Amino acid sequence: MEAKVNLAAKLAQFSDHFAPRTVAQFNDCDIMVAKLLGEFTWHKNDDTDDFFLVMAGRLVMRLRDREVVLEPGDLYVVPRGVEHQPYAPEETHILLIEPTGTPNTGDVATAAPRRTV
Amino acid sequence: MEAKVNLAAKLAQFSDHFAPRTVAQFNDCDIMVAKLLGEFTWHKNDDTDDFFLVMAGRLVMRLRDREVVLEPGDLYVVPRGVEHQPYAPEETHILLIEPTGTPNTGDVATAAPRRTV
Repeated sequence: MEAKVNLAAKLAQFSDHFAPRTVAQFNDCDIMVAKLLGEFTWHKNDDTDDFFLVMAGRLVMRLRDREVVLEPGDLYVVPRGVEHQPYAPEETHILLIEPTGTPNTGDVATAAPRRTV
Repeated sequence: MEAKVNLAAKLAQFSDHFAPRTVAQFNDCDIMVAKLLGEFTWHKNDDTDDFFLVMAGRLVMRLRDREVVLEPGDLYVVPRGVEHQPYAPEETHILLIEPTGTPNTGDVATAAPRRTV
């Protein structure tokens, strides 16, 4: 993996949704970009917080008691153990950080495979 | 610290350089924004990688054997143990991630205090 990563260039290399691509590593974490459109599954991670930074579009983070609307330049950390459902009403591009091996659905049986780009 | 963080709004709240502000936490890490102008000190962190994402301006990451020029949307992870000198030829805004307590100069004696905004 090269040292300098341009996020827009990485995002231009794929078009599928809810399929994060690892672009760099930071300590024990994968730094990923992803494209979202529509509703993801409700899930939680008991062992890690989830880092989201919106680069383009609009991300509605549905929580059990409220929802948080995130626009470009907005950062949101979902604390570990908190159920959430990302919903993108339009195509949305995000930067994601999670410890390497964290299943994106909260469940290894349904998680997207680890991919780089 | 509130849940949703707009990076531009946080950056608008201070003007000093090389004085990171913590805007959120992710696992054991501080997520920080900082404004840079000019040369920072040469330093390294033996216990952690350093995460940099350029939001505005231009950041020249000087390494002992080369330099890497980073522009908005460019991400760079300095591996642990690698000496580096951030140099911003113009005012530059960055997102930084490091484990809470990491001295920004690599040395607690000269490090900026932990501040939030």
